[in-house]
Amino acid sequence: MLCDIITIGDELLIGQVNDTNSGWIAREMNSIGVRVNQFITVNDRSDHIIEAVENALSNVDIVLVTGGLGPTRDDLTKETLAGFFNSRLIEDARVLQELETYFASRGRKLTDTNKKQALVPDNCEVLYNPNGTAPGMWFEKNEKVLVSMPGVPYEMKAMMRQHVIPKIIHRFNLPEVFHHTIMTTGVGESFLSDIISDWETSLPGYIRLAYLPSPGLVRLRLSCYNSNAAVKEEILQLSKKLNLLIGKYIYGYDDVLLEEELGRLLKENMHTLSVAESCTGGYLSHLITSVPGSSGYYIGSTISYANEVKTRILDVDPDLIRKKGAVSEEVAIAMATGVRTTLGSTWSISTTGIAGPGGGTQVKPVGTVWIGIAGPSVSFAKQFNFANDRIRNIQLSSMFAMNLLRMEIIRLQETAILEQNPEQEKEE
Amino acid sequence: MLCDIITIGDELLIGQVNDTNSGWIAREMNSIGVRVNQFITVNDRSDHIIEAVENALSNVDIVLVTGGLGPTRDDLTKETLAGFFNSRLIEDARVLQELETYFASRGRKLTDTNKKQALVPDNCEVLYNPNGTAPGMWFEKNEKVLVSMPGVPYEMKAMMRQHVIPKIIHRFNLPEVFHHTIMTTGVGESFLSDIISDWETSLPGYIRLAYLPSPGLVRLRLSCYNSNAAVKEEILQLSKKLNLLIGKYIYGYDDVLLEEELGRLLKENMHTLSVAESCTGGYLSHLITSVPGSSGYYIGSTISYANEVKTRILDVDPDLIRKKGAVSEEVAIAMATGVRTTLGSTWSISTTGIAGPGGGTQVKPVGTVWIGIAGPSVSFAKQFNFANDRIRNIQLSSMFAMNLLRMEIIRLQETAILEQNPEQEKEE
Repeated sequence: MLCDIITIGDELLIGQVNDTNSGWIAREMNSIGVRVNQFITVNDRSDHIIEAVENALSNVDIVLVTGGLGPTRDDLTKETLAGFFNSRLIEDARVLQELETYFASRGRKLTDTNKKQALVPDNCEVLYNPNGTAPGMWFEKNEKVLVSMPGVPYEMKAMMRQHVIPKIIHRFNLPEVFHHTIMTTGVGESFLSDIISDWETSLPGYIRLAYLPSPGLVRLRLSCYNSNAAVKEEILQLSKKLNLLIGKYIYGYDDVLLEEELGRLLKENMHTLSVAESCTGGYLSHLITSVPGSSGYYIGSTISYANEVKTRILDVDPDLIRKKGAVSEEVAIAMATGVRTTLGSTWSISTTGIAGPGGGTQVKPVGTVWIGIAGPSVSFAKQFNFANDRIRNIQLSSMFAMNLLRMEIIRLQETAILEQNPEQEKEE
Repeated sequence: MLCDIITIGDELLIGQVNDTNSGWIAREMNSIGVRVNQFITVNDRSDHIIEAVENALSNVDIVLVTGGLGPTRDDLTKETLAGFFNSRLIEDARVLQELETYFASRGRKLTDTNKKQALVPDNCEVLYNPNGTAPGMWFEKNEKVLVSMPGVPYEMKAMMRQHVIPKIIHRFNLPEVFHHTIMTTGVGESFLSDIISDWETSLPGYIRLAYLPSPGLVRLRLSCYNSNAAVKEEILQLSKKLNLLIGKYIYGYDDVLLEEELGRLLKENMHTLSVAESCTGGYLSHLITSVPGSSGYYIGSTISYANEVKTRILDVDPDLIRKKGAVSEEVAIAMATGVRTTLGSTWSISTTGIAGPGGGTQVKPVGTVWIGIAGPSVSFAKQFNFANDRIRNIQLSSMFAMNLLRMEIIRLQETAILEQNPEQEKEE
């Protein structure tokens, strides 16, 4: 079963808005066994929309369209699709009623512009929008399905979950897809590729490998698009073999985020975490707190751009900053131990560095970052040298900081196990 | 002059990586007067790549391709394009030398896998990669241009800036495009549309308006694709008329970010800023510090998930938290005044709320957020009610928090001007 995803909007093609809908929809389609053939992004012009829709309907079984359903005049998707499917636009009583409720609950008047959103093609199934004002539309023609949804991501997602995904599963007889993803951190793509070269060569033709790098991570994805129990087992065995080769870089499986895995480890050990950020400016804490339930182990952070904050709240010795500089091993350690004491946590992480573009020197160029860790019986810092890109330096520092703590917790866990069972090591 | 952007990669079509390259390239192309016709995303399969390339070359003048140039075996773009353009692959001495330097500087061995990256088609112009190992390729055929670049965003961006953009400007005779974007915050798309309905109807056919919503913002973009001095002036006059209608929602023009505008205001007044975050978990500080030069006005933040952090560092009365709850007007104000005193800033912002998915109650459901402001002579807090989506609540809270401070600074500026020139007001 094949699917095309069409996103509509001038704002996408001039780059003012990044399309996140296609990726999200693709993920959902893959998980139910629909393979995505292509993403296409076109502008708010009827002829271009029709060309993309015609082309997609000739290649695939399911066409999912987002965007262009807003109440404003630049949005033409509904009128264009009504023309394409020879529909008449009629007022839908339920949509109109939901519009009235939606506006009343927000204390706003239902305007004529918004009222037009209750007009729907007479030959589609209307998909009600739980989070917004534009209804979705499900068309069928020659055994193929085209679904039009709003472009606002959280409206589209609710509509997909409530209506579109259940209807697709019900309507089509889907083959089984199996993906298994190995999550690695702290190692580059080509270095990984060299280590696992022989293993990669041994893969059978029906199992595909992809390298998926993102800042601080490389995901290795094994896929089979027509899967069964035997193939799944084969993929899991291949993953075990891979663990023997690159185990120390693997922090998890199947798209678990590094911040989720760190949170899981902290929870498992009933540990808590505090953070003293400087160069990462809040991004590290943001990653940690973006995990639902993080309040179970995360206590709080300080972000100290000004040196006085480091001395006043974190109790870092002003002389130390003067002598060693704010970007130094000693200050990184002092920040980590300082926030650990002040906020009272099991573990703490600190970051201090030069994110750029300004602030670099000959000795400490832009990209120089120290990451500190303090814990029950340790405190240390490690230097990293990134490049010239401010946002990338912030991202990489945050990822490496989380990984440094993750590895330290695992190291202590393993030491504890060895101490509890000292004979085991000798026997092996 | 028309352009198609093709992104290649299985990882995009299964949604494991979001494409940010197309949007960035589109922005650059628009700014030099190349109109983007379409984005297409295809998987790592030769036949699919060729189909997309053939289709694009038949529709547009310039085809920009990213992705699939990595050293690993799943990447087929170079071989596929070499086949398509009837090229022979030859070793490029400069690429090889740069590869050697690149690996040596990182203390790593140049492997056979990486060495293959020095092979390039013999009938393309090689684009050297300042930030990575895969070279780009510039092909010309029948007056059309196809450029292949690596998919890693910061490698692609450097290659675009250094090679591709200057070469496109040099190679083609480009019409002038003019975009003017009005940035609004604190108001919804359909509400805006109703206020400006008459103004919108008055627009001439050669000037297009688009509504571009993103969390907390609506951008209104006026565009003309074949512009001249008179049209530019007309667009700027239209923008002035718009300012009379919706001035209070406009915080800036031409894609200035809210965090940039807030930073500009603080710098202009020589004011400083500190932040006490709770529910936004670092994201607000991250936005503020993502602006280069923010260290000129931003001092630091505290992030307090645990109530003890609020009492210990921000000096919030524990009784107040007990009586009113951590998510309350009183605690928001106490956090803002507390961080202002502790970190010693002109202004401070606080956030306290229930981001979700857990933690909601009947009285304070998920999405309830209080934002506090403290400054030289004011302290107050305002309640917001967002919805159920954790990440969206964090984003919206951060945007509304910055806007609340922005409006307060402007209000004080205007009051000061009135106080200095009390006669002026009467005269007008």
